[in-house]
Amino acid sequence: MKYLIKFSYDGTAYCGYQKQKQKPSIEEELEKALQKINNNSPTKVCATGRTDKGVHAYCQYAHTELNVDITEKKLKRAMNSNLPPDIHVIEAKIVDDDFHARYDVLEKTYEYLINTGEYNPIERNYVFQYNYQLNIDKMQEAIKYFLGTHDFRAFVTDNKEKENCIRTITKAEIETNNEKIKITFTGNGFLRYQVRNMVGILIKVGEEKISPEIVEKIIESKDRTKAGKTAPPEGLYLVNVKYK
Amino acid sequence: MKYLIKFSYDGTAYCGYQKQKQKPSIEEELEKALQKINNNSPTKVCATGRTDKGVHAYCQYAHTELNVDITEKKLKRAMNSNLPPDIHVIEAKIVDDDFHARYDVLEKTYEYLINTGEYNPIERNYVFQYNYQLNIDKMQEAIKYFLGTHDFRAFVTDNKEKENCIRTITKAEIETNNEKIKITFTGNGFLRYQVRNMVGILIKVGEEKISPEIVEKIIESKDRTKAGKTAPPEGLYLVNVKYK
Repeated sequence: MKYLIKFSYDGTAYCGYQKQKQKPSIEEELEKALQKINNNSPTKVCATGRTDKGVHAYCQYAHTELNVDITEKKLKRAMNSNLPPDIHVIEAKIVDDDFHARYDVLEKTYEYLINTGEYNPIERNYVFQYNYQLNIDKMQEAIKYFLGTHDFRAFVTDNKEKENCIRTITKAEIETNNEKIKITFTGNGFLRYQVRNMVGILIKVGEEKISPEIVEKIIESKDRTKAGKTAPPEGLYLVNVKYK
Repeated sequence: MKYLIKFSYDGTAYCGYQKQKQKPSIEEELEKALQKINNNSPTKVCATGRTDKGVHAYCQYAHTELNVDITEKKLKRAMNSNLPPDIHVIEAKIVDDDFHARYDVLEKTYEYLINTGEYNPIERNYVFQYNYQLNIDKMQEAIKYFLGTHDFRAFVTDNKEKENCIRTITKAEIETNNEKIKITFTGNGFLRYQVRNMVGILIKVGEEKISPEIVEKIIESKDRTKAGKTAPPEGLYLVNVKYK
């Protein structure tokens, strides 16, 4: 039986979603929990996508195939009792055999949180602490250039020449609440570090080191060296995934 | 020179505010940081009050006396560069020699957070996860009985017979936001575990195991065995302290 698992996690303690030798990963924890449920047979999961070290998820999906016949509710409960407290299954659903958690994605939404107010120790792993003022109006102007279909090569770290970097962004928004800034991106897919690199350039605009229009030129340049710093992982959340 | 330090902390990793042998405490971290600033002389701090293991603070105060002459801004900066990331100095202020961080308190405010919605791994150390519905209307009725001046003996764990348990509560409120519940208490002082024991009884009312009026009877009984469970520490925050 094929199942789709919806889950959330605190990425602080992990090397990222993807399995790596000798390092704790979300994927490994999911597979260990599933193996116990699946009569101790090694069990693979296939997720919507990877998240990097320190990045969080409120809504991530993975599919898996089990030999055992277990109800959706029982699978959720069994997984949660076998997972560590920083990973949580929200829902388990039986899906068609041809469903694919990665290929069937229509769009994903990421949020990035910045705090420009007083440092809060309780949020230290869950927001990017930035101790200077940012010009939000200029960031609002700049973020619009990301909307639409572009070749995002300038925002990809470790770019392999051959990779197709054309992606479509349908939502790019900045909201503020006192000294908290939330940046939201929705699109049909995101390349590695793309969101954090887009946030990095928006911060540069907010610092008034470059003017908003430069963002358009950087996108057009397709040149990674033009786009500046990668924002740190602790502010980044995968918050929604839409399927066909 | 006497200084008043305003600070915040994530209590998750500590045995509580107060120093204990072989265990990490907030007090010890503050004193270690101050000793480095104070020409390596052992330096004591005296706080508003203690918080227990796992309890957090957005606003806690302590006074200290230093031999060195350091500006308020520099003291804040020097402490923060010597403190671990889960403790943060918000402000340092020079105060009169007769100021006392504990005896001069007028009132304190505590908040307690409960989540009755889906478990969120990111908030696991910062909210009490309660997986059942609570009757908020009944809890609203019950919380009013705490207002005013009472002998809170029934809500004190490890009560020493001699201790004066008369305290005045000036604010006792419940707010909800979807499945999040915030309980706020302001008073001239709180006894050990008092807030968590008051929350414990409110939960029992919310579960409809006892009716709201019983809370008044429990207060009057002055009998700890009547008042039920202590709510867990991770939901509790010291959020405000007012001085004369």
